[in-house]
Amino acid sequence: MSEKNELGRENLCQAPVGVFDSGVGGLTVAREIMRNLPDEKIVYFGDTARLPYGNKSKDTVIRYSRQIIRFLKTQQVKAIVIACNTASALALEEVEKEFDIPILGVLKPGARVAASVTRNKKVGVIGTESTINSHMYDRFIQAQDPEISVYGKACPLFVSLVEEGWLKDPVTEEVARRYLDELMRQGIDSLILGCTHYPLLRSLVQKIVGEKVTLVNPAYETAKELERLLEREGMQNHAGKADPAEGYRFFVSDAADKFKNFANSILPYDIETTRKINIEEY
Amino acid sequence: MSEKNELGRENLCQAPVGVFDSGVGGLTVAREIMRNLPDEKIVYFGDTARLPYGNKSKDTVIRYSRQIIRFLKTQQVKAIVIACNTASALALEEVEKEFDIPILGVLKPGARVAASVTRNKKVGVIGTESTINSHMYDRFIQAQDPEISVYGKACPLFVSLVEEGWLKDPVTEEVARRYLDELMRQGIDSLILGCTHYPLLRSLVQKIVGEKVTLVNPAYETAKELERLLEREGMQNHAGKADPAEGYRFFVSDAADKFKNFANSILPYDIETTRKINIEEY
Repeated sequence: MSEKNELGRENLCQAPVGVFDSGVGGLTVAREIMRNLPDEKIVYFGDTARLPYGNKSKDTVIRYSRQIIRFLKTQQVKAIVIACNTASALALEEVEKEFDIPILGVLKPGARVAASVTRNKKVGVIGTESTINSHMYDRFIQAQDPEISVYGKACPLFVSLVEEGWLKDPVTEEVARRYLDELMRQGIDSLILGCTHYPLLRSLVQKIVGEKVTLVNPAYETAKELERLLEREGMQNHAGKADPAEGYRFFVSDAADKFKNFANSILPYDIETTRKINIEEY
Repeated sequence: MSEKNELGRENLCQAPVGVFDSGVGGLTVAREIMRNLPDEKIVYFGDTARLPYGNKSKDTVIRYSRQIIRFLKTQQVKAIVIACNTASALALEEVEKEFDIPILGVLKPGARVAASVTRNKKVGVIGTESTINSHMYDRFIQAQDPEISVYGKACPLFVSLVEEGWLKDPVTEEVARRYLDELMRQGIDSLILGCTHYPLLRSLVQKIVGEKVTLVNPAYETAKELERLLEREGMQNHAGKADPAEGYRFFVSDAADKFKNFANSILPYDIETTRKINIEEY
């Protein structure tokens, strides 16, 4: 299935960028795009009716990603950022082939940074079960430098602990110690926070792994990669905006209010409206 | 929308019972039906592509339940058991009105037992956020006896901890202590395990609340309620079975193999095949 991008070239630059995630976590990526590419409009979709993706199969995550991309195309987006590590790991290769629109994931940017910061060529990756089992971070890091050893560890409790709000709790610290112990014994000197929820545990993780281990958050580098892509394709928006928050639209598949509250706590602008759609129809 | 039960009366008795849950947890209810109604056939559906339900909205859980009931009707079931506490709390009242087939939930049976075992008329309920916030257990318990005080507490980390397999872990014990402390201060003498995952934490919870608090698992009582329903409606299967495991069929919406492994660890029979279907098509 190949779908044509229906935007005329003249409107392309002013079209929004589509960003999606299984839920709210991808807002940490949207925030970096807002900070670094302030002229770009964003249409964000959070699949709150079907989250989380991290324990679901490749087939299912591909099917969900396809539906979301079809929806984002109805919003006339010029490019799409998969802000979810699991969907980037399991679905990006497939949907890139199917859709005639530039699509970026968060894994390649994260892998590139990790490969550049490691000194001893030992990189750790933490993420969901599906992300770690896919070994896609390993592949992308070793494409940068085949001598790098990559040590992955799934941390399934982290998302629930973040959502419970126990960010600096002794329970979370004990869980993190148990998860990270194995990676530390391997002697890693850099660690990819391979799930969009994990940057919220950054200070706790840093405390456990110590200052000598560099934490890599793919969100910032993904925004920079988007910038290069838009430049390369001649799709940058130079029109400017009257108001910085202009042109940000938010959609979810479930419980719009809950999403709005969370979004307002992490974004630099207050979200006025969040619309709920039935993603299964796409 | 009202749908007609298309089974002829002559085939009704031999038709299977439909049982569904957001995932594997409902197998604890299926197990009680197998034990207590060994002549009945079962079609089980686990919505593994969209789990968990416990943090989703009423609208979404109703929509999912509707799709599953439509699917189960294609399997010619004679009655349906909603083995998921969240779906029982949020969707049962609505789907009962829409479908022309007997549908049971787990809340009323659980509420009835709790009302009968409490001596001091103080009952605790633990469950998902959506179940607790619905206050449906309170309603059903107070319908039995308006003088009973009901104290609810959402325990969102329990499902993840069970799925991580940390059933007797110090971390799980600390989390449980924190969740249950509030209920214990209210002086409850009975506690409903209001989520199908929680019976797997039974011994740890009993240790924390002490032997004087009676734990109520709605699964057994739900099987007994199903028995009464089938008797009342003249739908009991008296045909018997050549093999006890005959007539058990399992469907999921994602990753059939993972489900099969878990099912085989908790059911008294080995599941041969589990079929994956696309539930969004129903």
